[in-house]
Amino acid sequence: MCMKKFINDPADVVREALAGLAAAHPELRVDLDEQYVARADAPRPGKVGLISGGGSGHEPLHAGFVGPGMLDAACPGEIFTSPVPDQILAATRAADAGAGVVHVVKNYTGDVMNFQMAAELADEEGLRVESVLVDDDVAVEDSTWTAGRRGTGATLLVEKIAGALAEEGAALDAVAAAGRLVNERSASFAVALAAGTTPAAGRPGFELADDEIEVGVGIHGEPGRSRQRMRPAAEIAELIVDAVAAAGPVGPEPLIVLVNGLGATPLIELYLMFGEISRRLEAAGATIARSLVGNYVTSLDMTGVSLTVCRADDELLRLWDAPVRTPALRWGA
Amino acid sequence: MCMKKFINDPADVVREALAGLAAAHPELRVDLDEQYVARADAPRPGKVGLISGGGSGHEPLHAGFVGPGMLDAACPGEIFTSPVPDQILAATRAADAGAGVVHVVKNYTGDVMNFQMAAELADEEGLRVESVLVDDDVAVEDSTWTAGRRGTGATLLVEKIAGALAEEGAALDAVAAAGRLVNERSASFAVALAAGTTPAAGRPGFELADDEIEVGVGIHGEPGRSRQRMRPAAEIAELIVDAVAAAGPVGPEPLIVLVNGLGATPLIELYLMFGEISRRLEAAGATIARSLVGNYVTSLDMTGVSLTVCRADDELLRLWDAPVRTPALRWGA
Repeated sequence: MCMKKFINDPADVVREALAGLAAAHPELRVDLDEQYVARADAPRPGKVGLISGGGSGHEPLHAGFVGPGMLDAACPGEIFTSPVPDQILAATRAADAGAGVVHVVKNYTGDVMNFQMAAELADEEGLRVESVLVDDDVAVEDSTWTAGRRGTGATLLVEKIAGALAEEGAALDAVAAAGRLVNERSASFAVALAAGTTPAAGRPGFELADDEIEVGVGIHGEPGRSRQRMRPAAEIAELIVDAVAAAGPVGPEPLIVLVNGLGATPLIELYLMFGEISRRLEAAGATIARSLVGNYVTSLDMTGVSLTVCRADDELLRLWDAPVRTPALRWGA
Repeated sequence: MCMKKFINDPADVVREALAGLAAAHPELRVDLDEQYVARADAPRPGKVGLISGGGSGHEPLHAGFVGPGMLDAACPGEIFTSPVPDQILAATRAADAGAGVVHVVKNYTGDVMNFQMAAELADEEGLRVESVLVDDDVAVEDSTWTAGRRGTGATLLVEKIAGALAEEGAALDAVAAAGRLVNERSASFAVALAAGTTPAAGRPGFELADDEIEVGVGIHGEPGRSRQRMRPAAEIAELIVDAVAAAGPVGPEPLIVLVNGLGATPLIELYLMFGEISRRLEAAGATIARSLVGNYVTSLDMTGVSLTVCRADDELLRLWDAPVRTPALRWGA
């Protein structure tokens, strides 16, 4: 074992990281056998449960978003591997208080299939489940592990806004509808300068030359639209904003804007990119009402940046602003 | 310009990132001419000001810690370069409400000299300044840019705890004394798997072979104690905990523990390391009262992890728990 990662056996990474999460966050309940993470106080009587999950390697997504005002539970699969149906079912049970559970599912074939199977198993137990599919990445229509668009950065927005509504006591249909609305109104696009490395493979997921960038990259290193020459931040920002704007209007509704690092991008570069991106969005007529900058929806140690915009309205902004208390996202009371 | 960073001209990185910070955080006032970042409501009448600064490249330190409950202002120098005295003076003025200003200074020769000069200039203007020197890194006694120990991860703890006391209305001497106490009770140690790359140099600050790690590395890539063979996370954790424990007792006082990434370390690995480190600390008799895991005191895109422990008491824990509202650290009301 000489790979340059802070790991022991590559087969144990997810389990050992969950053990560390449990040690660091007593406000969470981590079930290492069933492999899910829940609010310590879940299920909350009368509250619609909100859960999500997917392959590991995208941290803080999803387990870092478990807590009051966001997810009730998350079920992380192995690295870049969907959680299995039994695991999703266990998380669903942990989040169910009789008012039903919403599954937030990123659009990858394995995730969609396994969440669907878990929903059927839950139904057999008399649990009500609604699914919200997230497919915000406008880079490509189909991809390595996807039929249709991929789910990426908008997942954070869906979980935050649906989570706020669930916390307020809204009913199952309303929480699911809010999640779907956020997804419909969101678009994302990413550029990578260098691939991430999975513990199992031990080498970067793809190779880029010193003067190449991957434009429209996915969060598992899936190919994007094209491989292009390296260029200054201002031109990369232009390329990203153009791609997002081409997929749908960026104004006049107030935008929630996420400038997201893909894991290994220094914060100083993310803020520089936010400056470049926000200027271009505003030049295109957009109003940036809320913003978030950081490494939130990642791809291990990929060097890259993604933009997610959501065309909001007063109600979505109110829910975005509502208090949230999770390991990775906290604000308000 | 073909370096693989999200930048334009390397000479403009800090300024452009500050412009992005200003766009993302309307609750901050960013002075691009004087190059400092302040709370929009600073100076707060009657409140002791708390400021810090140092070379850029360590984000979110320091500008990401400006806000209620932490810093009133931060003055970022160029990458890995001390802020100049006039800049520090401008930040001091921005934070001064007549009750005096505390400078939190990491122990690097340039920082110490420039903050000292700024303090003298402030004194000539009738401003009262107290300095808190942070020198928590137990790896080496002197280093490339340091006489004495280097200031690293404990800076976050000093800024949080002194900031909480200042927010409560404590007097200048008390705020400075709290900062010094946190530093005295803290110890840090870091290990790097790969160096970061400065925009100006365009290549990694040092080279490690595929099977080498830098043990006791500094946050500018300064050499540590030794270059050793790569090993599993469990053994790296042992090495780090042993180094910190050798520098001072880790029990029986309750510890505040920061497991910090040096910029490009994925969160999943940081949580795995927290699990390994916390188990070893507890085996050594320590009680972990509070913990924080993430990339907070970084070295651009260095791959590495540092441990900071602070031997706390009820009062320090109370101040740690006090509300904070900054871009990078938020909790409480």
